[in-house]
This record gives sequence, C-alpha cells and structure tokens, in this order.
Amino acid sequence: MKNLKVIAFDADDTLFINETYFAETEEKFCSLMSDYLSHQGISKELFKIEIDNLKLYGYGIKGYILSMIEAAMKISNNTIPIEVIERIIQYGKELTEKPIVLLEGVEETLEALNGKYKLVVATKGDLLDQRRKLHNSGLGKYFHHIEVMSDKQEIDYTDLIRRLEIQPEEFFMIGNSLKSDVLPVLAIGGHAVHIPFHTTWAHEKIDYKIVHENFMAYEKITDVLKQLQ
Amino acid sequence: MKNLKVIAFDADDTLFINETYFAETEEKFCSLMSDYLSHQGISKELFKIEIDNLKLYGYGIKGYILSMIEAAMKISNNTIPIEVIERIIQYGKELTEKPIVLLEGVEETLEALNGKYKLVVATKGDLLDQRRKLHNSGLGKYFHHIEVMSDKQEIDYTDLIRRLEIQPEEFFMIGNSLKSDVLPVLAIGGHAVHIPFHTTWAHEKIDYKIVHENFMAYEKITDVLKQLQ
Repeated sequence: MKNLKVIAFDADDTLFINETYFAETEEKFCSLMSDYLSHQGISKELFKIEIDNLKLYGYGIKGYILSMIEAAMKISNNTIPIEVIERIIQYGKELTEKPIVLLEGVEETLEALNGKYKLVVATKGDLLDQRRKLHNSGLGKYFHHIEVMSDKQEIDYTDLIRRLEIQPEEFFMIGNSLKSDVLPVLAIGGHAVHIPFHTTWAHEKIDYKIVHENFMAYEKITDVLKQLQ
Repeated sequence: MKNLKVIAFDADDTLFINETYFAETEEKFCSLMSDYLSHQGISKELFKIEIDNLKLYGYGIKGYILSMIEAAMKISNNTIPIEVIERIIQYGKELTEKPIVLLEGVEETLEALNGKYKLVVATKGDLLDQRRKLHNSGLGKYFHHIEVMSDKQEIDYTDLIRRLEIQPEEFFMIGNSLKSDVLPVLAIGGHAVHIPFHTTWAHEKIDYKIVHENFMAYEKITDVLKQLQ
C-alpha cells in the first residue's frame, strides 16, 4: 500500500494470549466466592464493578485485582474472611507472571514487514505489564516502540497519530477488537484490519457487521501480508 | 543552548503537587492501623511492601492501594476487619481525585519556552493518572506529548531518546528527583536540571552532591530560563 508509514499492532490477543488468562483467573475467583452466589451472578457483579472502576483505574491487572476485592466485599456483604482478600491479591500477582504464548503467524508476519514500514505496538492496559509482556515475548526487536494508550477511543488515536507526526491515512492498525482496534481508527481516517481471537471480553463486543473501504477482516494474521507486501 | 531539541519535564512535584497527597494518605492509613503498631512502624512496613511490589506493580496509585491492603493484612496478622480494607480502597480512589495544584513559576516557564523547543512530559506512574493530571492541570497545550515511563533508569531514558529520534546531547530533563530525573540522564549523555520539592519520597533520596558539566541545580523552575533563552 502506498503512503503507509506506520503499522500498529494491538498486543493482547493479537500478538499473544491474554483473555484466556483473565478468564482462568475469573473462574478461580468464582470458585472462591461460590458460597455466596452462582458463577454467573459473581461474574455479573464483578463486570459491573470493573466497568464502574474503568474511569478511575483504567485497563490492566492492578485495576482488575482491586475490582475483584471490591466485588468480594460487596457479594459477601463484608462478611468475607480476610484470607480471601489475600488469595485474590495472590491470583493477581500470578496473572502478572503468566507465560507469553505467541499467536500463530505473528512472528512470520513481523519478519516479513520488518524494515518495510515503521512497526509499533498500540495497546491499552498497565504500562509496566505491557512492556514486560512485549519484552518477554521476544518480539521487541521488530518494533520501533510501544504505545501504551489509556484508552482506545477516537481521541486516543488522534493523539497517537499526532505523536507519531503522520496523517491518519498513513496509519494502519491490526487488532482483535472491532470496538477498540477497528471502529475508532476508521472513524479518524486510518486503515484497520480485524483478526478475531476465540475469546472476547464482554466490554469489547459489538454486534453488527462493518463494511468500509479502509477495512478488512482476516482469519489469521499472516493474511495481512497479501495486502501489505 | 544550541543543539537542544527536546526539553522534558517530570510531572509529579515538578509541575504540580503530588508527594504531599501521598503523605496525607499515608498519615490516614497509619491512623487507621494505629491499634497494631506505631506510625513509624507502619510506615516502615508499608514502604518495605511497596518496594517489594515495585517490580510487579510499578509506580502509581493502584499499586499503592494494593500495597496498603497487603500491609494492613500483614501488620494485623490477618485480623484486620474487612471494613478497613474498604476504607483503604476509598482512600485510594480519593487520591486519584485530588485537585491539581501547579507549582510556582511552572506556567511562566512553559509559556517562555513554548515554540522554541519541543516540550514533553516524562513521568513514571499510572498511565491513566498521569494523563488525567496533565489534562486537569491545563498545561497540556504546552506539550507535544506525554511520555509515561515504566521506570526512570538509564535504559528507560535510552528508550525514550530512541523513540524521540534524537541524540542524548539534544535532550534536556527538568525534575525534582536527583535519582530519577538527573543521574540517569547525565549517565547517558543528556542535560539535566534539578528543582527540589520540599518533600521527597524515601525511595527517591540520594545522599551525595552532583557535579557535572551538563548539570545545574536551581531553587525555582523559572531559573532554567537563564540557561535556555
């Protein structure tokens, strides 16, 4: 593609597994709280608290731990034993230390694009977690730098493009979330590709189909090479 | 100064008050726990847990809340009532909503440098907190962008300079921490200025004097204009 200067990759569930680990942790949290409520009821309460806290805490593991603690207190009406809080903090710490599992075709795709475009990572979440994950993934060498965004709305992409000193049409985003990686990028005049991951967090789901001249959906990440080489 | 391309400002306690609010929160935490230990003993225990957690949680309010919760459990040998945990979470949320108080001379300094150099904010902490604080400070218009760093060691400044696509000697850092804003910048060949704040977190303290051709210490931030105009 001509005029393209920066290709940005989402990280979680685009480059490597993430949602799977959160889902596992949530499963453990629900088991821990199963005396008080059904799994479904606990998940619903936790999700509500997470969303309420997003504005204060943003995305990432630390906010997730704090929301689990708050949910445990609320669900138990403050009767939860202190050891449960201790356990939740432990689950959170374990979450920061999960192994990095690259998704299929990621390294092959980065290798093929390396040197042809400026490649960056554009991700939301905890700054430290995201940097650590990228470092541990061994993919750092392919990227000019990592952009950890506080959110992925239009305003955040506009800021990103200004920081990169490029025009929107010179920006190409690849990610697994239609809501965060595709829609806002198309809205500001950039290009976007969707590569689905098998699990999507409820907060990232949308229920309609996108048709746009700057948009493509692929089954696997290596498919973007058809368009970019 | 010739050859200077980017002037970076630390945010907390350089542009606006921060440590004062953490100190206030710690004071409230110590009062909350005063049945178990002396203020000094509590502070010491909390500091130890904070430092242990830095590698996992990084800097910022969320990690601080989690460390206070952990300290409360440890200090009380898990006998702390659940309502205290609730209160700690509340203190943390309040900390994210403190008013932004600009330090003296900050706006005058930025106004004078505006348009002459590329100005950026280079800060560590929670991404969301730092962006919110900068936004609420009204200073956003002076800065090209904000760099939230996971830490402020030599490697982090080397990364920063690579991202900015400049040479170390073209970089000038202004901040209140000798350990974080001055020493690593001098070590990689940049310029640094120290403007002290009345309160310094124990983790940021060093106990020797710095003499270096690229270093200056000033009483107040407007003094840098003597050097930069």
